[in-house]
Amino acid sequence: MPQTPHIERHFTAGDVVRDVVIGMSDGLTVPFALAAGISGAIDNSRLVVVAGLAEIAAGSIAMGLGGYLAAKSDAEHYASERLREEREVQEIPDEEAREVQNVFADYGLPPQESAPVVQALTKKPKEWVDFMMRFELGLEEPNPKRALQSAMTIAASYIGGGFIPLAPYMFFHSTRGALPWSVLVTLVALGVFGYIKGRFTGGRPGRSALQTIVIGGLAAGAAFLLARLIS
Amino acid sequence: MPQTPHIERHFTAGDVVRDVVIGMSDGLTVPFALAAGISGAIDNSRLVVVAGLAEIAAGSIAMGLGGYLAAKSDAEHYASERLREEREVQEIPDEEAREVQNVFADYGLPPQESAPVVQALTKKPKEWVDFMMRFELGLEEPNPKRALQSAMTIAASYIGGGFIPLAPYMFFHSTRGALPWSVLVTLVALGVFGYIKGRFTGGRPGRSALQTIVIGGLAAGAAFLLARLIS
Repeated sequence: MPQTPHIERHFTAGDVVRDVVIGMSDGLTVPFALAAGISGAIDNSRLVVVAGLAEIAAGSIAMGLGGYLAAKSDAEHYASERLREEREVQEIPDEEAREVQNVFADYGLPPQESAPVVQALTKKPKEWVDFMMRFELGLEEPNPKRALQSAMTIAASYIGGGFIPLAPYMFFHSTRGALPWSVLVTLVALGVFGYIKGRFTGGRPGRSALQTIVIGGLAAGAAFLLARLIS
Repeated sequence: MPQTPHIERHFTAGDVVRDVVIGMSDGLTVPFALAAGISGAIDNSRLVVVAGLAEIAAGSIAMGLGGYLAAKSDAEHYASERLREEREVQEIPDEEAREVQNVFADYGLPPQESAPVVQALTKKPKEWVDFMMRFELGLEEPNPKRALQSAMTIAASYIGGGFIPLAPYMFFHSTRGALPWSVLVTLVALGVFGYIKGRFTGGRPGRSALQTIVIGGLAAGAAFLLARLIS
């Protein structure tokens, strides 16, 4: 039984959870703050809704597409570095073997102690390259198929999060009437989201809830004050 | 001479460059798209500037503070996992030694070949823990002092990027007059930014320039059409 909990305790958020967190934390915060900011300047809910939906469209596309391209370029970077290592293992094996030795030297192991592992690795070219990728270059193999799914998850979470602060402005003609409700539902949503995020990512849920509430509140407060000052 | 280029060719963007890229790509894209979206619905430049500045305040705070807290929580996660490994190396050394063996088994090295390294590591508790952190858990030690600098860099880059698309709206009364200029200066800025980003991150600069232009253009186009449809 000691083996199972030992693996589980290192559990951290999966990739999908991470994408939902990325999309939803910005989706809840920025449209909320923008709506509060416009409310500070102009008493017209319709305008807040138009600007808010434009922001949600822009933000979800920018984040989703940005995430997609970042994932693609990570995959390409990994593939090109791997090709280079494969070539070097063939062409300059002695130097590459010395690099394996250096990896172990960083952990205080002199050449005579690391020699058996270095020798064994040099006999298995595929594993040797795997080892160099991870331990010399610190690169993990990305899954290129995840790029699209990741983009969709981020964009959908941004849209889902963004509708929460905007909803009250769809029901009130006056921003003065909508703003308090938008603040209320969004702070509650930020708290719930932060709490769940804290549980999934292994942090303290209560503190995580407080942090997301403070970020959203500060961003909205600053946008509100700035818009009121300049209008 | 073979050693020096060998290190340099693995050069990738430094931490500050990474933060500037994070802040500026969103700062150029989202305020640009929001301004275009509002222009599609209402012919009032003053309003675009107010909403745009509110968005810049909200976005820079949300991204900067979000980055700060993410860096802090990475540092805490690393510290707590490290404490746990230090305790386990003391309390269940045999099991931890078996885990080192398993790391090498993943690279096709049987226990008899990895034994000398495993044995040597178990005699150096600090290096042993270092090794487990990096090779078993895949965690790099984060620099906790970078959190604040990272937050400021991201926020400043967001603000700097966001002023570019808004500037034309400050000079024109009509959004119809400002929008074409905003599109022009922002697409040029996105192209220059994408090109420089591509050079720093080791990708193809021309393709990187094209990608940032397409993301910004799609986000702005979608926001413009959506706002025009609903207004």
